[in-house]
Amino acid sequence: MPADFEAMWTELAPIGRDASTGGYFRQPWTPAEGELRAWFAEAARARDLSLEEDAFGNVVAWWESASSSPAVLTGSHLDSVLDGGAYDGPLGVASAFAAIDRLRERGFTPERRLGVAAFAEEEGSRFGRACLGSRLAVGATTWTDARELTDRAGVRLGDVVAGADSPSPLLRGVGTYLELHIEQGRALIDRGAPVGVATGIWPHGRYRFDLGGRADHAGTTRMADRADPMLTFSATALAAAQAAAEQGQRATFGRVEVRPNGTNAVPSQVTAWLDARADSPEALAELVGEIEAQAAARAAGDGTSVAMTAESVSGAVDFDPALASRLSRLLGGAPLLPTQAGHDAGILQEAGIASAMLFVRNPTGISHSPAETAPTADCLAGVDALADCLAELTGAAS
Amino acid sequence: MPADFEAMWTELAPIGRDASTGGYFRQPWTPAEGELRAWFAEAARARDLSLEEDAFGNVVAWWESASSSPAVLTGSHLDSVLDGGAYDGPLGVASAFAAIDRLRERGFTPERRLGVAAFAEEEGSRFGRACLGSRLAVGATTWTDARELTDRAGVRLGDVVAGADSPSPLLRGVGTYLELHIEQGRALIDRGAPVGVATGIWPHGRYRFDLGGRADHAGTTRMADRADPMLTFSATALAAAQAAAEQGQRATFGRVEVRPNGTNAVPSQVTAWLDARADSPEALAELVGEIEAQAAARAAGDGTSVAMTAESVSGAVDFDPALASRLSRLLGGAPLLPTQAGHDAGILQEAGIASAMLFVRNPTGISHSPAETAPTADCLAGVDALADCLAELTGAAS
Repeated sequence: MPADFEAMWTELAPIGRDASTGGYFRQPWTPAEGELRAWFAEAARARDLSLEEDAFGNVVAWWESASSSPAVLTGSHLDSVLDGGAYDGPLGVASAFAAIDRLRERGFTPERRLGVAAFAEEEGSRFGRACLGSRLAVGATTWTDARELTDRAGVRLGDVVAGADSPSPLLRGVGTYLELHIEQGRALIDRGAPVGVATGIWPHGRYRFDLGGRADHAGTTRMADRADPMLTFSATALAAAQAAAEQGQRATFGRVEVRPNGTNAVPSQVTAWLDARADSPEALAELVGEIEAQAAARAAGDGTSVAMTAESVSGAVDFDPALASRLSRLLGGAPLLPTQAGHDAGILQEAGIASAMLFVRNPTGISHSPAETAPTADCLAGVDALADCLAELTGAAS
Repeated sequence: MPADFEAMWTELAPIGRDASTGGYFRQPWTPAEGELRAWFAEAARARDLSLEEDAFGNVVAWWESASSSPAVLTGSHLDSVLDGGAYDGPLGVASAFAAIDRLRERGFTPERRLGVAAFAEEEGSRFGRACLGSRLAVGATTWTDARELTDRAGVRLGDVVAGADSPSPLLRGVGTYLELHIEQGRALIDRGAPVGVATGIWPHGRYRFDLGGRADHAGTTRMADRADPMLTFSATALAAAQAAAEQGQRATFGRVEVRPNGTNAVPSQVTAWLDARADSPEALAELVGEIEAQAAARAAGDGTSVAMTAESVSGAVDFDPALASRLSRLLGGAPLLPTQAGHDAGILQEAGIASAMLFVRNPTGISHSPAETAPTADCLAGVDALADCLAELTGAAS
């Protein structure tokens, strides 16, 4: 008999965990993520699900059916951000296996194929492109573009995964995708509900700022004679936070690389990545434009240069409204809420697969952090909700 | 016959040079710096100088003398900052060998021992402590304190060099130290002189700022709900530059490390290093106090924490005034000028060895940069000046 949800969670807990921070380093195609893939294969085997992997590293465990009706996919991803939490991704995968266990305990047999997916590199923490596995799977990103992406050590994506010039066969015949995920905010806390249903994803993007200055001695160079890109970066980071706060949107500089990064040298180069999100594409463009303009104005005074490159921009996603309403009703009126976070479900929705998401309540709202957590009771409520939804979606009446 | 100055400079040019930036990575106890040490040993051998190395990696090539009068030391260092210039350090060492060649061409024989020194880890670019080799040599830093210093990869100083519990035997009997160095500002350009004489070193220090916040999702966390240490850092870097400009001093944040340094996560921790210098100890204390106060004020608003640690602080150094005047007169009235940069000569002066420095004109003032340069004619003028000074200091009349 397969392990129940709590047993699965215990198995997953130590994989890729940093002893000093308690956070997770589950970057794709690393040994830690390889352990998660082995765990996934074993969970499929224990349930007599058939395992199918594509050339991009995405994997699905299928509960097969003789029906030729459009298949239903659930799941999430196994990778994490750097020093991330345990729940973002794996909760959706473990809950999917647990929901299948629930359905079987109920004697339920799906009228169509039901798959548990784990998409590769959802966080973009290694190759810099969020939802990379699902983007490649649907053909939103081509292999020609993606294979030259490099990680921080200079390793090419093309050197760690086979790749293919056509979209993934995993998604052929899939009509619906339902992803369960920990909530990454406090909307469910405010509403007193353990489970909610997503309505859509804010438009968002990643923008690289290359700020060029002139290396100089930190002691002998007069302040007025400098071209210090660290100052341009600092002013830009503050401007971004202020603009986002004023406009009710989000802007974050979470990653910065300084060259040469020596204590007694004025830097020659600062590269910084802006993560920006807004409630409409117009608002996103306004926010990013404001930040870029402020960076340019500061650079003019600093004698530095600024070049901004949009590394990835995702438009607004509206999940299938009929599907969201139906699931909310099925779950007794579960709250409907938007999210500011990107997800594979957004990529699949945009590619024409009717998609929906369930969120499980997060008592602090903290995510992408070692402190990310959810109560076991809420996780189990999520499993039950997912099982109910999957029964609805794969049942004869669907 | 030994190589002349220009031939030596050509030999040194490729060692530790980064092809993409043209800058130098000559960190101590790396292969590049090992090549420089081998070059130093060969330069000593070619001149029949006797090589002596201490347990801290400092090395001296001695022109021996039967006299028991106090010895004269010259030289500088071979290591560089990260992505530094060719001249800072090696110019003083190569000029010292070339000056010995000049003296021999003149048929000069010193009346006292004359040594060419190369001190280890002058820049502090690997273990974070500037002038580490000379500090250990004079006993200003103890081996007990130093051996646990680690580089960015976690390697202990005690694992790369033997160390010893007593000061270096290299400096026994040394009465005078004269270091030639590229100027790191524009004072000589302004005065139209190829060579100048240093009067002293500004007090300066390195201060680590540990800024703690809370990791969070860059999309879902409202701006008002964050504790983002990147904002605290940014405001502190701007405040430091402004305070230094207003007070006529120097403050630089050239190095920063962010954790987890992911694009879509609010950082949990930012560590940044302040390099601060001022024309008096009181002015340095005022400058650093102002920066620390502004960091604390910003942190209170950001909900972050600040802890400042002084990693190394050097007081003002006044070089031996009689020695500086004597050398200036000998060089036909060479300009006397202070410097904002730390040097091994400052450490030796503070340890009771009468010390002086010659500066060679720098047409741009740029230093700690791939763009650092000096005209060959000025370098050769520096060699001549150094030879004249060494003849004076080691001659019978001295």
